[in-house]
Amino acid sequence: MQNEVTTRKIKVINMDARKKIVIVGGGFGGLTAAKELKNSEFDVIIIDRTNHHLFQPLLYQVATAALSPGDIAVPIRAVFNDAENITVLMDEVKKVDKNAKKLHLGSSELEYDYLILAPGARHSYFGNPQWENDAPGLKTVEDALQIREKILLAFERAELTSDPAERKALMTFVVIGGGPTGVEMAGAIAEMARKDLKNDFRRINTTDTKIYLVEAAQGILTSYPDELSYKAKEELTEMGVTVLTGKMLTAISENKIRLDKEEMDAGTVIWAAGNQASPLLKTLDVPLDRAGRVLVEKDLSIPGNQEVFVIGDSAYYEDEKSGALPGIATVAIQQARHAVKMIKSSPEERKPFQYINKGSMATIGRAKAIAVVGGLKFSGVTAWMLWSFIHILYLIGFKNRFKVMAEWVWYYVSFRHSVRLITGKNG
Amino acid sequence: MQNEVTTRKIKVINMDARKKIVIVGGGFGGLTAAKELKNSEFDVIIIDRTNHHLFQPLLYQVATAALSPGDIAVPIRAVFNDAENITVLMDEVKKVDKNAKKLHLGSSELEYDYLILAPGARHSYFGNPQWENDAPGLKTVEDALQIREKILLAFERAELTSDPAERKALMTFVVIGGGPTGVEMAGAIAEMARKDLKNDFRRINTTDTKIYLVEAAQGILTSYPDELSYKAKEELTEMGVTVLTGKMLTAISENKIRLDKEEMDAGTVIWAAGNQASPLLKTLDVPLDRAGRVLVEKDLSIPGNQEVFVIGDSAYYEDEKSGALPGIATVAIQQARHAVKMIKSSPEERKPFQYINKGSMATIGRAKAIAVVGGLKFSGVTAWMLWSFIHILYLIGFKNRFKVMAEWVWYYVSFRHSVRLITGKNG
Repeated sequence: MQNEVTTRKIKVINMDARKKIVIVGGGFGGLTAAKELKNSEFDVIIIDRTNHHLFQPLLYQVATAALSPGDIAVPIRAVFNDAENITVLMDEVKKVDKNAKKLHLGSSELEYDYLILAPGARHSYFGNPQWENDAPGLKTVEDALQIREKILLAFERAELTSDPAERKALMTFVVIGGGPTGVEMAGAIAEMARKDLKNDFRRINTTDTKIYLVEAAQGILTSYPDELSYKAKEELTEMGVTVLTGKMLTAISENKIRLDKEEMDAGTVIWAAGNQASPLLKTLDVPLDRAGRVLVEKDLSIPGNQEVFVIGDSAYYEDEKSGALPGIATVAIQQARHAVKMIKSSPEERKPFQYINKGSMATIGRAKAIAVVGGLKFSGVTAWMLWSFIHILYLIGFKNRFKVMAEWVWYYVSFRHSVRLITGKNG
Repeated sequence: MQNEVTTRKIKVINMDARKKIVIVGGGFGGLTAAKELKNSEFDVIIIDRTNHHLFQPLLYQVATAALSPGDIAVPIRAVFNDAENITVLMDEVKKVDKNAKKLHLGSSELEYDYLILAPGARHSYFGNPQWENDAPGLKTVEDALQIREKILLAFERAELTSDPAERKALMTFVVIGGGPTGVEMAGAIAEMARKDLKNDFRRINTTDTKIYLVEAAQGILTSYPDELSYKAKEELTEMGVTVLTGKMLTAISENKIRLDKEEMDAGTVIWAAGNQASPLLKTLDVPLDRAGRVLVEKDLSIPGNQEVFVIGDSAYYEDEKSGALPGIATVAIQQARHAVKMIKSSPEERKPFQYINKGSMATIGRAKAIAVVGGLKFSGVTAWMLWSFIHILYLIGFKNRFKVMAEWVWYYVSFRHSVRLITGKNG
C-alpha cells in the first residue's frame, strides 16, 4: 500500500512538472508539430474538428473520383498511437483566452503552457457567402465528396433529360480561380469527360462537355514564371478546357452564371478562388491581414505573447528572399518545426524563421505538369513525374503510399475509375 | 445526303423491331439479368436509384472501417460501357402500370415489352419506423457510412466526456438481430474495440467496450445446423460479445434501450433484425407476403402477367428441396438467369425455377466463420478461408477484387485500419 501511494504521488508530481503544449489543427502544420514532440518531455494535446489528417494536395483526385477518401486521409489517432505523451481530441476550439492561457472547447476548457495554432483556412467568396452552396470549394473530404457528387449527377441528369437546353447547361462546368487547385480541377474534369466517361452513356456524348477555367487576373498560375504559366494554358486548351482570363464572376443562378456582365450556361460551378483563415484567429485580439491571417513575429509567435505560435496558412509571414509565403504544405511543415524548436529553447534564444524554398509544382493532367526547382523550370512529362514522385513520397502513412501508387498505376493504365460513386443524400 | 437519310431510316426501323426489356434494380439480381442480355437482340434499360452496384456481403466491412465504399461498389455504367444495347438510368421508379406496360419514373414514363423487377429490400422495424434514426440498418453505402460514423464518434465522445456514466453508455454497442449481418457486425465491432483501436486513446480503455448481440429467437444464425450456430455463439463470446437470446427490443432512447422490460445502457444501436421489400411492389396489385414480397409464379412471373418477373429478395418463392428461399445473392443471381431464359424462350415453354443450393456461410471475425457446403459443415479458419475465397472470387469488377485482397492482407497483417474516417455533417 505504502509503495503504491508513493508511486502515485511521484507520478502526479511528474505530470505537473511536465509542460503542456496544445496544438490546434491536424493539417500539415499541426501534425508535423506533434510529430516533432513524439515521446518528448512535454504533454501534448492535438485538437482537430475532424478525426483525420488530410493529404490536401491530392484532394482534387477525390473530387474527380480517381481516389477514395481513405486513400489520402489517415486518422490522427493512428499517427500517434505509439506516442504516450500525445493525446488526440476531436473537438472544436471556440476561443483562445491568451491571458488566462486556456482554450474554450465545445463543452470544456483546456489550459496550456504553449499553444501552436494551425487551424487552416476555408474558401472565401469575397463578400458573397451565399455562393457557397452553388459553387462549393475544396478544402475537406466532405467538400470533395460533395463536388464528386455534383459532377457525376450533372452527367446523370444530362442523360435523363429530354430538354436540349438543359442538357447543354448540365454538360457545362465552370471552375472559378486559376491557381493550382483550379487548374487541377479543370484538367481532371476534362479528362473525366473526354476519356473515363466516354463509353458510359447512351444518350449524351460526354466528349461534348464544355469546361471553363475563369480567372480575374490576366493569366493562370501567376506565381510561376510566365513561360510555365503560358505552357499550362496551352496544355489545358489542348485538353479541351477554355481558359477565360480577366473575367470576374458576378452572379450565380440555377444553371447560369454571370461573368462581368455576360451571362453563360453553367450546370456545375466549382470555387477555387480565395481563402479566408479560420475565424478562431479573431479571438486572439492581434492584428490580422485581409485574409484573416495573423501578422506573426519573426519567431512565428503572436505580438505580445511568446508562448503562442501561429503557423501555416493561418499566418502571414514575409521572408526576405521569398516575400510573402504561400499557403502550401512545405511552408506549414517548416514553420511547425521552427515553432517546436523555439518552445524547446529558452525565451532569450528566439530566432527568426527562415523558409527554404525547395521549389513548387502544379499538375495539369495525366503526364502534364509544371515545376520550378532550384531556379530550373520543368514542364510536361518530366514535371509530372517529379510531381508524382514528391507527392507519393510525402503521403503520410506508409500504407496509403503504396495503395495510392497502385491506384495510380491502374488508373493510368486502364483509363477507368473505380470510385465514381454518388452516395450523398441529395441524389 | 440520300445515303444518310436511308441509313437513319433503317436504324429507326431496327430499333422499333427490337423488344425492350426494362430491369429495375442494380443489385445482384438486376445486374446479372442485364449481364445475361449484354449485346443480345434486346434493347435493355437498367434503372437504379443509385449509380452503383454494391457487393452487399462486404458492406459490414465498410461500416466497421475495414474497407472503403469504392472497394465494394462499382458504377453500373462501368459494368456495361462495352454493351451498346444497354442503357443505364439513375432514376426512381414510382409505379408500375402493368396494363399499359409502362413505368412511371421521377419525371418521365418508360414503356417495356418485358419487365424484370429486382428492387430489393430495406430494413423493417416491425411497426416502429421511429427507430430508424437511432438504430440504423445496413443496406446501402450511405447506411454503412452512417454506422461507421456513429461507431467512431461514440469512442471520440467517450474520450472527451468527464462523466463516467456517459462514458460507459458511449462504450456500449448493441446489435439487434442474430442473423448473418448481426453476427458480422457484432464480431467486427469487438475486434475493432479490442484490437484496432487499443492504443489510439489516452483517457479510455477501448478493451472495456461492451458489445451485445440481441436476438428474439432462442439462438443465433438459426438457419444453420445447431452445431454451427452453437459454435458461432461460442466464438463470439470468446471475442468479447455478449449474446442475449430470447430478448426483444421494446424501446430506444438516448444512450438507453429496453429489452423486454429491462432497461440497459446503449450508446450505439445497430439494426439487423428484419427486412421489408420495396414499396414499389405494392403498385403491381398482386398478392404479397408479410414482408412485402411478391408471391411469384413457378416461372418467377407475377400472377396474370407473363411479361413481368420479380426476382431476388423482392420475391417469395418456395422450392421443393430448400423450402422458402432466403434473400441472398446466389438466389437472386440464379433467378435472374432463369427470368432471362424465360424471356428468350416462347411463352408456351415456361419452366419452373429450380434453386441449386451451393451452400451458405457466415463470417464471425478474423479467421472465424461457419459454412455448410454440400451437406458438409465447416467452422473456424477453414470456413473463414472458404468464405474469403468465395467472396473475393465473386467480387464484381476485376480491379476491386485485387485491391480488396491487398487491403485484407494488409489489414490482417497489420491489425490497423486505414478508413476510420468521420466525414459526415453530424460530426
